[in-house]
Amino acid sequence: MPDFDMVLFGGTGDLARRKLLPALFDAHCAGLLHPAARILATGSRASTTEAYLAALEESVRPGLEHAPPDAWAAFLARIDYVQVDADEPAHFDVLARRVLQRAPEVVVCYLATAPQLFAPICAQLGRTGLNHPGVRVVLEKPLGHDLESSEAINAEVARDFAEDQIYRIDHYLGKESVQNLMAIRFGNALFEPLWRREWIQDVQITIAEELGVETRGDFYDRIGALRDMVQNHLLQLLCMVTMEPPASLSEDAIRDEKIKILKALKPITPQEVAEKTVRGQYRAGAVGGRPVPGYLDERGIAPDSRTETFVAIKAEIANWRWAGVPFYLRTGKRMQARVAEIVIHFRDVPHAIFPRPLGLSPQNRLVIRLQPEESIRLYFLVKQPGDTVTLTQTSLDLDLANSFKARRAGAYERLLLDVIRGRLGLFVRRDEQVQAWRWVEPILETWRDSLVPPKPYTAGTWGPASSSALLSRDGALWHEEV
Amino acid sequence: MPDFDMVLFGGTGDLARRKLLPALFDAHCAGLLHPAARILATGSRASTTEAYLAALEESVRPGLEHAPPDAWAAFLARIDYVQVDADEPAHFDVLARRVLQRAPEVVVCYLATAPQLFAPICAQLGRTGLNHPGVRVVLEKPLGHDLESSEAINAEVARDFAEDQIYRIDHYLGKESVQNLMAIRFGNALFEPLWRREWIQDVQITIAEELGVETRGDFYDRIGALRDMVQNHLLQLLCMVTMEPPASLSEDAIRDEKIKILKALKPITPQEVAEKTVRGQYRAGAVGGRPVPGYLDERGIAPDSRTETFVAIKAEIANWRWAGVPFYLRTGKRMQARVAEIVIHFRDVPHAIFPRPLGLSPQNRLVIRLQPEESIRLYFLVKQPGDTVTLTQTSLDLDLANSFKARRAGAYERLLLDVIRGRLGLFVRRDEQVQAWRWVEPILETWRDSLVPPKPYTAGTWGPASSSALLSRDGALWHEEV
Repeated sequence: MPDFDMVLFGGTGDLARRKLLPALFDAHCAGLLHPAARILATGSRASTTEAYLAALEESVRPGLEHAPPDAWAAFLARIDYVQVDADEPAHFDVLARRVLQRAPEVVVCYLATAPQLFAPICAQLGRTGLNHPGVRVVLEKPLGHDLESSEAINAEVARDFAEDQIYRIDHYLGKESVQNLMAIRFGNALFEPLWRREWIQDVQITIAEELGVETRGDFYDRIGALRDMVQNHLLQLLCMVTMEPPASLSEDAIRDEKIKILKALKPITPQEVAEKTVRGQYRAGAVGGRPVPGYLDERGIAPDSRTETFVAIKAEIANWRWAGVPFYLRTGKRMQARVAEIVIHFRDVPHAIFPRPLGLSPQNRLVIRLQPEESIRLYFLVKQPGDTVTLTQTSLDLDLANSFKARRAGAYERLLLDVIRGRLGLFVRRDEQVQAWRWVEPILETWRDSLVPPKPYTAGTWGPASSSALLSRDGALWHEEV
Repeated sequence: MPDFDMVLFGGTGDLARRKLLPALFDAHCAGLLHPAARILATGSRASTTEAYLAALEESVRPGLEHAPPDAWAAFLARIDYVQVDADEPAHFDVLARRVLQRAPEVVVCYLATAPQLFAPICAQLGRTGLNHPGVRVVLEKPLGHDLESSEAINAEVARDFAEDQIYRIDHYLGKESVQNLMAIRFGNALFEPLWRREWIQDVQITIAEELGVETRGDFYDRIGALRDMVQNHLLQLLCMVTMEPPASLSEDAIRDEKIKILKALKPITPQEVAEKTVRGQYRAGAVGGRPVPGYLDERGIAPDSRTETFVAIKAEIANWRWAGVPFYLRTGKRMQARVAEIVIHFRDVPHAIFPRPLGLSPQNRLVIRLQPEESIRLYFLVKQPGDTVTLTQTSLDLDLANSFKARRAGAYERLLLDVIRGRLGLFVRRDEQVQAWRWVEPILETWRDSLVPPKPYTAGTWGPASSSALLSRDGALWHEEV
């Protein structure tokens, strides 16, 4: 692992506190960080390292229950606070001097800020020489709110950084079970022959949250679920499920296959939006037995907001492998459970010779869980024990957390280490992003212009009834754990 | 379940005491036997029902630990002892009168006797009218010791019984996991597309025993492992693994597919015997830490015996589905462990993109265990957790005994109930038997005429080294549990 400086723009923000610093601490404890590596947390306000560390002690430390005091102290010793206001070129001069003086092999500039700051920050980094080939810049979502704004950012960033210095992060790609999806597909001969239209009935990808908009109502109301989850996470997962076998694990071999999928996504025309998409908005209800307010009653939400908090889409991929197979994508806030999973529904046998009890789903299913736990489960039919030939469903289970005693890196830790090592494979290339925006924009625009408001759904359910109807029109059903 | 009389020829024998009566008792306890159903145990000696039941109390009862006293008493009340010497026509007259007077719907004549008695017993049954369409005759192995002798028996039995009255039993086919092999293959869309030469590297079927010849040395020395295990059990299991999907579960749909496999078995010519088969004979060694004598030192064995106690064969099936796939069959006494299993080795990926640790077997494997426990296990590769993309092997497991709380019928119970219900599907048809003998006879004859004695192997091992060599010539390895 090379020596590095990590400049954490937005160092006082939510993401830094909840995800990035804990991930770096985990890597530190596992001995994965170079001894000399440093973290420069920046914020727009004048403050001191002491004050910043004291704040971490209060805000970050309590979440790290098993943090040994020694390790925590050693970790804090890596951190400095640097005041960097994006509008103050002088601040960048100071920052650049500190980094360039020490001259570590790698410099990671993590932009955990609002996207409108990406361009100005990158410009300053370029001006001060913090864009030399050893510098990598990590961009957090949202990277703009449509094709135009995201391309504007990309163009600005590209003035000072080459594409292979730019790490657009999608933390779902760092999850162990998503990594395993590739290993399952391309490390085994068992699944790949089945992984095509001949044997697969449909694929479902769900990212359901129990949370509502929390304190981010103001932000969320301008974004909505399609931009927040579909354009990035769901489409990225879709690529991982459906891409052709890459010739190698090299970053461009993988990303070349992913972009082919994004380009092969059948456009959803304005005329088709009503038929192939569902947008929903939660009403008051109960999640986990606790009453929760409706979206329109949340803080920061316009009372007549038509922002969607739920999306379901029927996508199709126009290529030889996938033509005709529906890909059902859904995501929502205030759902019945927090779950992220990919479900591969295999086709039924062409000719059934075994009696099957009424109501038994005859489909074989492979369920790859990303949340709340990471697991792989294969459902298939076996003979009911005893004196009959009746079938019953069973499952083979692999619990990734319990099966392996080894420490598993969290998604952010994995991705941060990949940035430090210069591995781009799990990051989103510019053309992927462009293509993903191209695909979602007609949906966004049609919804914007539509007279039909989002379908209401009660908080704590699986979304509006139209979501079930989207599948039942094809004779399909959302997967529910049996 | 119809009312029946079961006439148990060999009622004082080992099989009746160890397997058949306990199986009937289990069915009795599960309420599966008609209340009026009767068991007529026969033996050649004059005795009384009281004496017979007293003997059962001593020999059978201790093995049925959980037998409730009431149920045991009620079960014994179903049993009568009848003296039937195969050479005494008068005994058959008495027997027939007893059975025909009560006239149950079904009469099962279970011939758990030496095979030379099959023909005389069937002739007497025919003479006394105990061959009417409600009568079914069950034939235990060995059904002769070669094609000629077995066909002689079949021809004799066929004089008095139609083929659909004849139940040639192979108790391996009654095992839950063998039943499940069919359910897995034909009840799921997941495995059948892979179940062919394109995706399968080799198939291994092992039936290994820890026991030696025990008290049956005299019998076994005239038979050997090829006749005792390969001609019947191993070839039947091979058929279950490889047959085409039957159009229905009807007995002839299944058996028509099985016979096609037996006919497609590539003959092993005398010239090929040395290359494609291994015969072994155990020497003194230790099994489970206990020293055991060599085969030649067992009671009843000729000191210069060349009878094989171990067989390994490389079989091939000359049809579109299986051409070129080796099927490695092996069975032996005094092996390292008691295990019966079917192992499907899938091919490696055509192009490996993941680094694989040295020594890691890249093959996906489906292991169907029949003994000691019944289970299904799928081995495949996943990503090693943590910060690498290295693959490691894992397995998805289905333990049939523990996964299902329901009572599971033993193999003999299942098969006896099938006889009572008239279900022939799990019994061996005459043409199957003929074909199986045809295939093994050239091997038997070549061994008989060969100057090369069986390869010695130490008791408590996996057989002679030639057995490993048989596979390693093809670059294969016997499956060992990881």
